[in-house]
Order: sequence, then structure tokens, then C-alpha cells
Amino acid sequence: MAEKKNEKLEALRGELNKTDSILEQAFLERMETVRKIGALKAAEGLPTYDPAREEKVLAMHSEKAPEELKGYMREFFQKLMDLSKEYQKQHR
Amino acid sequence: MAEKKNEKLEALRGELNKTDSILEQAFLERMETVRKIGALKAAEGLPTYDPAREEKVLAMHSEKAPEELKGYMREFFQKLMDLSKEYQKQHR
Repeated sequence: MAEKKNEKLEALRGELNKTDSILEQAFLERMETVRKIGALKAAEGLPTYDPAREEKVLAMHSEKAPEELKGYMREFFQKLMDLSKEYQKQHR
Repeated sequence: MAEKKNEKLEALRGELNKTDSILEQAFLERMETVRKIGALKAAEGLPTYDPAREEKVLAMHSEKAPEELKGYMREFFQKLMDLSKEYQKQHR
């Protein structure tokens, strides 16, 4: 019984690893794109921080999430945006 | 000139939106999988928090990242795991 459950646990961990690879790749892509956006804005003399757009992105993703995951989704995207802003600053 | 740059900005934002959709979807999948893992561990009487595995996941993803993104990657996965643990607790 315990062995069967551990097999199931291993299968779920395998799924998690696959999802984490997607997250890793997409995170790198996001950072690359925000770096380019930051450079373009700097060249145009535009501010990199756009609170209205940030709130729009946060609201859009959390509203689409299932009820019990809305708060988690918002926190997830808040972190993504905080890290993105920090990275943009580093490249200004 | 400014118009051309804004076109480029819009194109980059389009890329960002696509990447964010992938991140959103993968985040929901991760939460679903960790919920299942938490339920399985609870059924087996195993602790849900596994610091050794957590450190392994953090190290693996940050080590693979380009030098200047290692710290960001680690922080990104730390947040993912913190949110995952919180969600697992909610379902215990």
C-alpha cells in the first residue's frame, strides 16, 4: 500500500518537475522581454514603472483564476512584476 | 520615430502577454499538482514540508539560469514554493 502511494507520489512529482520546467523557461522569457521593454522606454525617456498597467495585469490574471486561487494568482504576478522591475532597474 | 518605437513597445507587450498566459496556466497546474501531493502525503501521514527537496529544486533552477538571473530565479521559485505550501495547508 505504502509502495503504491509512493509510486503515485513519484508520478505527481514528475508532473511537478515538468510544470516547473515550463515556469523556469517562461520566467527567463519574461525577464528577457522586460529587459527589452526597459531599454526601449529608457531610449524614449518614458518611465519604466506604469502602475496602471501593473494593476491591469494583476486584475486580469487574478480575476480569471478559480475563486480559491485568485489571491495566490495575484501574489504570484505581483512577485513576477517586482522581480521584473528590479531587473529593469539593473539594466537602465 | 516615436511612433515606430511605440509599435515596437506594443509588439514587446504582446510577447509579454503571451508569456504571462503561459505563466498563469503553469501556475494553476502547479497548484493543482501540489494540492494532490499534499492530499496524498496527508493520507500517508507524511510531513508536507520537505526542506531537502525544496533546497534541491531551488538550487537546480537557479544554477541553470544565466549568471545575472540566478538570484531572480531563486527568488521566483522560493515564492512559488511558499505559495504552494500555503495552498497545501489550506487543503489539509
